[in-house]
Amino acid sequence: MKRRRGRILLAVTGWRPDNWLREFRANAPEREVVTEPDGEDDASIRYAVVWKQQSGILSRLPNLEAIFSVGAGVDHVFHDRALPNLPVVRIVADDLTMRMGEYVVWQVLDHFRQGATYRAQQAARIWKSLPQMAAGDITVGIMGLGVLGTDAAGKLAAIGFRIAGWSRTSKDEPGIACYHGEAGLDDFLAVTDILVVLLPLTGATKGILNTGLLAKLKKSTPLGGPVLINAGRGGLQVEADILKALDNGTLMAATLDVFGTEPLPRDSPFWSHPRVTVTPHDAAASDPHALVPQVLRQMDNLEKGAPVTGLVDRKAGY
Amino acid sequence: MKRRRGRILLAVTGWRPDNWLREFRANAPEREVVTEPDGEDDASIRYAVVWKQQSGILSRLPNLEAIFSVGAGVDHVFHDRALPNLPVVRIVADDLTMRMGEYVVWQVLDHFRQGATYRAQQAARIWKSLPQMAAGDITVGIMGLGVLGTDAAGKLAAIGFRIAGWSRTSKDEPGIACYHGEAGLDDFLAVTDILVVLLPLTGATKGILNTGLLAKLKKSTPLGGPVLINAGRGGLQVEADILKALDNGTLMAATLDVFGTEPLPRDSPFWSHPRVTVTPHDAAASDPHALVPQVLRQMDNLEKGAPVTGLVDRKAGY
Repeated sequence: MKRRRGRILLAVTGWRPDNWLREFRANAPEREVVTEPDGEDDASIRYAVVWKQQSGILSRLPNLEAIFSVGAGVDHVFHDRALPNLPVVRIVADDLTMRMGEYVVWQVLDHFRQGATYRAQQAARIWKSLPQMAAGDITVGIMGLGVLGTDAAGKLAAIGFRIAGWSRTSKDEPGIACYHGEAGLDDFLAVTDILVVLLPLTGATKGILNTGLLAKLKKSTPLGGPVLINAGRGGLQVEADILKALDNGTLMAATLDVFGTEPLPRDSPFWSHPRVTVTPHDAAASDPHALVPQVLRQMDNLEKGAPVTGLVDRKAGY
Repeated sequence: MKRRRGRILLAVTGWRPDNWLREFRANAPEREVVTEPDGEDDASIRYAVVWKQQSGILSRLPNLEAIFSVGAGVDHVFHDRALPNLPVVRIVADDLTMRMGEYVVWQVLDHFRQGATYRAQQAARIWKSLPQMAAGDITVGIMGLGVLGTDAAGKLAAIGFRIAGWSRTSKDEPGIACYHGEAGLDDFLAVTDILVVLLPLTGATKGILNTGLLAKLKKSTPLGGPVLINAGRGGLQVEADILKALDNGTLMAATLDVFGTEPLPRDSPFWSHPRVTVTPHDAAASDPHALVPQVLRQMDNLEKGAPVTGLVDRKAGY
């Protein structure tokens, strides 16, 4: 008997499954996709495609072979304390990379070109030139030099910014002044005018954006003070510390796309802070149309024993 | 007797001359710079460096050899009805090109990534994802494919946008779908989602941004309607037509850095239009520190008979 192609469990919490289901059916009609284990036929489920899956749901599937995250991050997968010890694959896709690149360039430019000041002037009908810095006098420091970080670095460099980068392990990327590890962090922060955070959330990075780190950012920046852009994960930031840094002048401004609690509660002081830009975890949306073919390609690769992009190192946590 | 190096007349209206004088003195102490003709020694003035010079001021200098604009545009030079028939040289400098590139990318991204909607949501403490378009589904059409236009095109293409370009004469630029002349204008507009205008102001381009042109922009754009970004000259736009187009849905939004009357009068409806971004002719500031060495290099080239970058074709007007 020919081995049946594995069924897929789609377990996305907080997202509507419809678009994902439609794309799976359109791209792989031969693969059956279900949105919950049905007890009867759980043994036929070989793959799980997840976003914040219910704890314990995966451990009940006896023949599960791999877990696919529908985002670039996988911290939401590891919340599951009964997570089976199986390969976890995250999204590495041009579509997601392009969207993150747009977001980072957009927000870096909005701070660098003083968007908030121009908008306030417009609201007050004030015609007044602002002093212009040269991009070549500003260093954008990127924490996290994976696919997203190096792509954003290239786009920012093309616009004229100087680029520094920090990563857990040693990297050598052309056009990026690379620092790594705990030993390299202070030197990296000391040259950084605009800090862009694209780190994964792991045990080692939780709460890394705190008073101690922010105080080490470059002080004599032409921007008037350092700027923070976090498009990684909310768990990276100690939010009380960021507020304090904004209020005591350690930080001049911030763009935050992610928060410890999402949706950001209505009483959060970030909403109305005059020097904070809030976006609703929208830096790089996971678009089923673009991402499902990528997930299916990785399933095919797993089945053929071909190399799989985005295979997570469980010890490192990303 | 050794020929004395020519004196320079610096005639900038509306700008403070101090920084320009300081840079000339620092970079070329051997060249004397005056800020007005003094009658006595007018015959020794060989070069004029100007921004909106007083009409007739240059025609009184018997030995003037060339006129340098301190901006990329030269329309302000030609306002002078007594302008002597001498070479006019405009600024072509990396510094100006980089600043314009930043501005164009910033504003294209702010429209494409729905900055105004996110800011309104933040003000109302609303956490709501917005549908995201892919940059590859959007064509940015650039009018004016000189140094500024082709540079901005490259930066936008790197971010993922499709690029079309329109110029007076035929051009063939890699990565740009090129259109030219009156015959090519309608086809160019029909593919354009975001129109970026970097044209010089000449007899042929005055008032080109009018109802007829705006009505030909791509209608079925993923943005909900076409967007106009004018960082060229105010004289290119018929402002009543742009307001009408914004209000009747022909245009979805606009960024205007330049206006027919500058400073923009306090009672202009552009200030408070919810879908208009106003900046005070700040897209690319002329920075004396970066530009004076470039002007001096061109003076040296003129004196040596070497090729001069930015020599204006007086018939074309740029």
